[in-house]
Amino acid sequence: MLTFYYAPGTCALASHLALEYAGAPYEAVRLDFRNQQQRSPEYLRVNPKGRVPALVTDRGAISENVAILQYVAQSFPAANLAPLDDPFLLAKVNEFNSYLASTVHVNHAHKGRGYRWVDAEDTAAIEAMKKKVPQTMAESFTLIEEKMLQGPWVLGERFSTADLYLFTIAGWLEGDGVDVQRFPKVAEHMARLAAAPQVQKVVAAQKA
Amino acid sequence: MLTFYYAPGTCALASHLALEYAGAPYEAVRLDFRNQQQRSPEYLRVNPKGRVPALVTDRGAISENVAILQYVAQSFPAANLAPLDDPFLLAKVNEFNSYLASTVHVNHAHKGRGYRWVDAEDTAAIEAMKKKVPQTMAESFTLIEEKMLQGPWVLGERFSTADLYLFTIAGWLEGDGVDVQRFPKVAEHMARLAAAPQVQKVVAAQKA
Ligand SMILES: N[C@@H](CCC(=O)N[C@@H](CS)C(=O)NCC(=O)O)C(=O)O
Ligand SMILES: N[C@@H](CCC(=O)N[C@@H](CS)C(=O)NCC(=O)O)C(=O)O
Repeated sequence: MLTFYYAPGTCALASHLALEYAGAPYEAVRLDFRNQQQRSPEYLRVNPKGRVPALVTDRGAISENVAILQYVAQSFPAANLAPLDDPFLLAKVNEFNSYLASTVHVNHAHKGRGYRWVDAEDTAAIEAMKKKVPQTMAESFTLIEEKMLQGPWVLGERFSTADLYLFTIAGWLEGDGVDVQRFPKVAEHMARLAAAPQVQKVVAAQKA
Repeated sequence: MLTFYYAPGTCALASHLALEYAGAPYEAVRLDFRNQQQRSPEYLRVNPKGRVPALVTDRGAISENVAILQYVAQSFPAANLAPLDDPFLLAKVNEFNSYLASTVHVNHAHKGRGYRWVDAEDTAAIEAMKKKVPQTMAESFTLIEEKMLQGPWVLGERFSTADLYLFTIAGWLEGDGVDVQRFPKVAEHMARLAAAPQVQKVVAAQKA
């Protein structure tokens, strides 16, 4: 049995979707960010970074979407969530996922979590960061649209965890002040996944 | 034959070291960042992100350290650079590498590349970012020292790509205004790797 920690509206959706697509047996535990539950002593014992997602296995906890996504794909190979037998294609999945984690997610985080990188009291700097988010997010999605998303899935004909992670981050565009319709392939990808029963089930569970 | 693109003093050192440890046949190509060679039309055809590292294989290019490190480990399994037969331990390697890429490298980048996240002309915001780098880097390395680096290697007794990546990022601490001696396990890990012949060879080649 796996225990999965998440908070609604966060990047944890990517790993949550992977567990669902994998048909994995898991219990989902919601953290309340408004009450800073991610910084509670109990949760810091699960993930000392105080972030979601975290997946607790019988051998210990795993954090970081990039790591959890591949772990789920490898643990439930029948679900075919990654090209496990092809190191080059698997690297392309990890390349895509790592770009989302290290660049696109980071762009977005400058809207609500600017205090990570400047003093929280420096409201001018915090505002300066917020102001640029629509531009950095649009730049990243231009690259995704034109160079990375082959269509219909990230890898082309083959579905993978990269699609679940892309769906998650693309869902932030509207709130970041970027019209997803500027990126027709991304918009179509997003609409297609939004209609999938696994996605609807997880989205409903996160809201319930 | 593999072609590896790097620039000295960058995160590309991690993947460069992995190629060397793997005994891979590769040609290393240095980009001149002072002349913005990473943004040249030729290089953008290799990596449209305009960043290093990039590894060109006979099936195409791979970017992102997290992806290249696992690709090298999988392509040269005899070098034993990752626990390829153990999905949980492999996830722990990817968790560590993804933390370096998405959090620690990003902390550091706020020193010299603040213009990514605020207008380049906003010198006050750029300075505000620079000022916090010693603190964010020290916080990340406190976590690494206390919770992540098991010792002697990241995974404990087992050497992996995570050690090469940690060595690379720990090498930035001094320039970021953080004394590595505050983190005894990291300092010892760094000294041990600095003495390894593979590391000395790559470091010399990057300087030559
Ligand atoms: N690199 C990590 C990032 C995890 C992360 O930043 N999660 C956010 C939610 S999107 C979080 O837990 N933030 C809580 C906080 O900053 O207090 C990953 O990809 O899993
Ligand atoms: N997430 C990427 C980051 C790559 C990256 O930011 N590389 C830097 C060097 S440390 C770069 O090429 N910068 C060039 C620039 O910003 O123009 C990875 O881990 O490989």
